Amino acid sequence: MSIRFQIEATNGAGRLGRLITPHGVVETPVFMPVGTLASVKGVAQDLLEDLGVQILLGNTYHLYLRPGVDTVRGMGGLHGFMSWDRAILTDSGGFQVFSLTELRKVNEEGVTFRSHLDGSSHFFSPESAIEAEIGLGADIIMAFDECTEFPAERERVRASMELTLRWAERSKKHFDEHKRRVPWGTSAQHSALSIEPKQSGESPPAVPRWAGTLPTTGATQSLFGIVQGGMDLELRRESAERTVEIGFPGYAMGGLSVGEPRAVTREIVESTLQYLPIDQPRYLMGVGTPEEIAAYAALGVDMMDCVLPTRAARHGLLFTSVGKVSIKQARYANDAGALDPACGCRVCARYSRAYLRHLYASNEVLAQVLNTVHNLSFYLDTMRRVRHSIRLGEGTGFLSGVSSQPKP
Amino acid sequence: MSIRFQIEATNGAGRLGRLITPHGVVETPVFMPVGTLASVKGVAQDLLEDLGVQILLGNTYHLYLRPGVDTVRGMGGLHGFMSWDRAILTDSGGFQVFSLTELRKVNEEGVTFRSHLDGSSHFFSPESAIEAEIGLGADIIMAFDECTEFPAERERVRASMELTLRWAERSKKHFDEHKRRVPWGTSAQHSALSIEPKQSGESPPAVPRWAGTLPTTGATQSLFGIVQGGMDLELRRESAERTVEIGFPGYAMGGLSVGEPRAVTREIVESTLQYLPIDQPRYLMGVGTPEEIAAYAALGVDMMDCVLPTRAARHGLLFTSVGKVSIKQARYANDAGALDPACGCRVCARYSRAYLRHLYASNEVLAQVLNTVHNLSFYLDTMRRVRHSIRLGEGTGFLSGVSSQPKP
Repeated sequence: MSIRFQIEATNGAGRLGRLITPHGVVETPVFMPVGTLASVKGVAQDLLEDLGVQILLGNTYHLYLRPGVDTVRGMGGLHGFMSWDRAILTDSGGFQVFSLTELRKVNEEGVTFRSHLDGSSHFFSPESAIEAEIGLGADIIMAFDECTEFPAERERVRASMELTLRWAERSKKHFDEHKRRVPWGTSAQHSALSIEPKQSGESPPAVPRWAGTLPTTGATQSLFGIVQGGMDLELRRESAERTVEIGFPGYAMGGLSVGEPRAVTREIVESTLQYLPIDQPRYLMGVGTPEEIAAYAALGVDMMDCVLPTRAARHGLLFTSVGKVSIKQARYANDAGALDPACGCRVCARYSRAYLRHLYASNEVLAQVLNTVHNLSFYLDTMRRVRHSIRLGEGTGFLSGVSSQPKP
Repeated sequence: MSIRFQIEATNGAGRLGRLITPHGVVETPVFMPVGTLASVKGVAQDLLEDLGVQILLGNTYHLYLRPGVDTVRGMGGLHGFMSWDRAILTDSGGFQVFSLTELRKVNEEGVTFRSHLDGSSHFFSPESAIEAEIGLGADIIMAFDECTEFPAERERVRASMELTLRWAERSKKHFDEHKRRVPWGTSAQHSALSIEPKQSGESPPAVPRWAGTLPTTGATQSLFGIVQGGMDLELRRESAERTVEIGFPGYAMGGLSVGEPRAVTREIVESTLQYLPIDQPRYLMGVGTPEEIAAYAALGVDMMDCVLPTRAARHGLLFTSVGKVSIKQARYANDAGALDPACGCRVCARYSRAYLRHLYASNEVLAQVLNTVHNLSFYLDTMRRVRHSIRLGEGTGFLSGVSSQPKP
């Protein structure tokens, strides 16, 4: 047993759940901050804990290049390497590799690609990608898929979907044969993480370390399958059904948010969800804005990730209860008010818009740190409100940016 | 009354003191981290509080250019602007202006200089520099001086010293006439800082907000004089005596650490200290390594500042109990040990050398954050040990990097 998923309440299609992993409980629907290179850019791990982050995402492609899988495995996997004992999910590298449009070559066996760092040549197959993910040791890992480009002809989408299905079987086979090699519990680092209290002077996490955590001894990772099928509802249905037939403890929808109109994304998601098992976690990859993640949660999506809050923060774009704020604007130069008076994060509680504007305009590193903390806090608060609404059976109309619906 | 200085213990020439400012007590000897643009690069204010920072340094030249004095004054001074209610010291801009060798022109009246940002022309006189410092509202501000270049002919050093003395008188005159215009207490920001508890969820500072803090109502800033005189012991003596004659509540030694050999710096400091009032704070500007700050404290210096710990951190150079570590080196790539096993900072308590090396090699912003936290912690710990040794009357031989001397 490697994860358990419990649905605690539903509201329409939305579900409130608990995803119990070898490294703690994840309350769903959940937004997973992206820590590409084993770091959420600019934000230390204790701050992520304070923000209530229960699961982080790491990118296999980037970690494979730097610091390399062997280094991470030697430190007990990502948990030991980055000193994070809550849950982690890694993608398979597929999406990043397929983003290297000029630098890759696909065949049945896998993908040959060139590093964006130094141009060196590398090869990912379903087997080697899963091998890398086992070495990285995340709690949840993803099958190696082909992210179909957009737009694409129907026959191309079908061929790509078929390839992803064959790769899903190979991913699963390799995982089943090698999953016992997960680096947990074999290294001093991980043992230290599991047993000894931290000495960092931090207050303990809100959820005790052991509560709802599966024992890591004997536990393995969980491999999720990925539904593809482009923007074709029928192919999405076929991809979902055949991926479920292969059998995974959770399912993702990939190949979305790749340039298609938002209405199409939503239509695909809503349609695909009905072909995924209702009692297993459903993960929508790579979305979205605060309004979108709330809306997808209301449709029954359990997990989401996106670089938007962290990347936007680095560009001075901040999400607030009254819309987006571009903090670089001169209008904020003497604004003594909080960034978002309705926000309780440590940035809004302490600093003025004038100070945040100054930090950004002066290219101070603290701008990135504080902006990222706020945006992540805003995303996590959004999901907290979503979960609260589902629990109370409240309408979730407010989640799409319109006013709250009356209670039923 | 704007500051009080109490000497609580002495050990040889070294003194343990309490510098009571309108924004809290500063235990001396103290190392002051540099927050050039109202931010210690990469480190949030709550983290500086956790590190035990009791006084920060801001740079008038940089703050005058960005965000501008009016903006800071309008937010209640630096304390309100950067949300820091502990003590602050600003330099006068003199040192930075004199670093712009190609971009400045000095005459009796003051210095015309070009901004390093956009080449725009500006003018600092003793009066306008003090005016800027009053607007920035630090607890301790510095007279406008000429930092004599090194090396320099004796006559040039004397002329420069005389100019600094005339500017010291003008600085004092302007300050005395205008010191009531300090922005404390006149703005909503500052009132909020003084009266209301923070809502940031932070634990309260170790020293209660009111203990040993002078009331800000009616309190003013304190203007320190600066001793110059190049590397000439006689001129330093004359500069010290004549600066003391003008009369300030504290005295700095400027124009050191500008390229001269370390032994010369030390000789000048040791010699000059004997001409400074024993019951007033003595500030050595712009030094130094951990060994040096400990050694200068043992000579009777009460205050020091330096960009070294923060700047070195950005270049991956870390100070540890066993010497400097260049964390970028490949030898640390798989090193599971703490950066400095003897250090109790949150970085050493949580992260491995391998992780810190990865962050630095991958150009992750968190590298700068964590490296800076560690280096500052190391400097502050060094000064804590110095103060402890003075209190106990212990030898301070360990402070220069040699083994501890036996107790007397």
